[in-house]
Amino acid sequence: MRLRGRKGIRENLEEQTDLVVLDPRSYKGQWSKLFGNDHPIYVEFGMGKGQFISRMSHRYPEINFIGIDMYDELIRRASEKARDIWEPEGVTTPPNLKLALANIEYAEEVFAEGELERIYLNFSDPWPKSKHARRRLTHPRFLEKYRMLLNPLGEIHQKTDSRSLFEFSLNAFADFGLQMTNISLDLHAGGINEEHVMTEYETKFVGQGIQIHRCEAIVGADALERYKASRLDKYRM
Amino acid sequence: MRLRGRKGIRENLEEQTDLVVLDPRSYKGQWSKLFGNDHPIYVEFGMGKGQFISRMSHRYPEINFIGIDMYDELIRRASEKARDIWEPEGVTTPPNLKLALANIEYAEEVFAEGELERIYLNFSDPWPKSKHARRRLTHPRFLEKYRMLLNPLGEIHQKTDSRSLFEFSLNAFADFGLQMTNISLDLHAGGINEEHVMTEYETKFVGQGIQIHRCEAIVGADALERYKASRLDKYRM
Repeated sequence: MRLRGRKGIRENLEEQTDLVVLDPRSYKGQWSKLFGNDHPIYVEFGMGKGQFISRMSHRYPEINFIGIDMYDELIRRASEKARDIWEPEGVTTPPNLKLALANIEYAEEVFAEGELERIYLNFSDPWPKSKHARRRLTHPRFLEKYRMLLNPLGEIHQKTDSRSLFEFSLNAFADFGLQMTNISLDLHAGGINEEHVMTEYETKFVGQGIQIHRCEAIVGADALERYKASRLDKYRM
Repeated sequence: MRLRGRKGIRENLEEQTDLVVLDPRSYKGQWSKLFGNDHPIYVEFGMGKGQFISRMSHRYPEINFIGIDMYDELIRRASEKARDIWEPEGVTTPPNLKLALANIEYAEEVFAEGELERIYLNFSDPWPKSKHARRRLTHPRFLEKYRMLLNPLGEIHQKTDSRSLFEFSLNAFADFGLQMTNISLDLHAGGINEEHVMTEYETKFVGQGIQIHRCEAIVGADALERYKASRLDKYRM
């Protein structure tokens, strides 16, 4: 039964204790314990309806995924999406996925220092007015938080259709001293790039011929070393 | 008299000894002597018809400019453009501009180590086929040359309408370990950006609504220090 009322939604979420985390602050520094293993933790800040994080958890069973959003309704929709994706295999509780209700503004109250290995920022609100620049999820004040939360292998992966947000992000990553790699201005040029799991927005935008921008920013020291060791091979100089 | 024949063009160029340099290898390490002062030297690799370098020389008299191209006809057209721009002031020989016939492939035969302070790459050939990637002027094999030729304040400034070349360049700058700054995916969004002198292509493209991409890559150690000192101020963190 799918509950539609506001009160119904909260009750629905409260019943899904195997998948939904309504009090994520309680797990700060304890997420590995909640998953029951020490696999790397990849988080999506702003998961929306959850297609990306659900498919990722299904594709990469050796990684623990956490999808974050701040609205009950989105958590509920994401929970349905996640169970639908795992259902064909008879799995009722995705073992490596949690959906957490939280405001990214207070990410440091939800995760401990070095607790995360990757942060996904997919189609974040571009906040186009310059007076709202501080709200963009790649503003250096957020990058400060991410750097604290990520471990030595840590990376930030961003996708967006917003030219202005992407431009802002590239400059912010550069200004913040992060090493960028795999910059793409049109991710699906020449056909869908199956390597990358798509979000709901992305599926829609690509169908409309809208270009998707993508970038990885390396935060962790070990990730940077690995990157440096490989960086010029591809040019066969 | 404007000469049109091929033989005529070369004779025309040979007569313009005050502006045109047909044997640029002779001036390797001697460009400051040719200009008669020790002002910084900014070079445009692939100046085309010369609008950009001519206007730049006119706008910034304290900088010495050199426009490079490999075709006689382009040098001739650029020489006319340059004299036209300076003519209203009664100047027949632009004092801080030279137009040099050279192949950028052999730039290190034309300039000595550290002789340049800035390299402009405007609307370079995108060489879209991957088998031609090595010919792109931001391929790391060229970045190696540029790093050698640039002084401690050295920077590379690129503009292009080519999405594929710009994407390649951003990745090449990043992979090569250069600090990027002032990345713009649509330089003239919201009206012509008068801060930036435009090339012939640019004027045409902007009129057609084509987006211009721009990026600066910091090469010199002193330029990097200055950049680092200023980089996060603009976010008012």
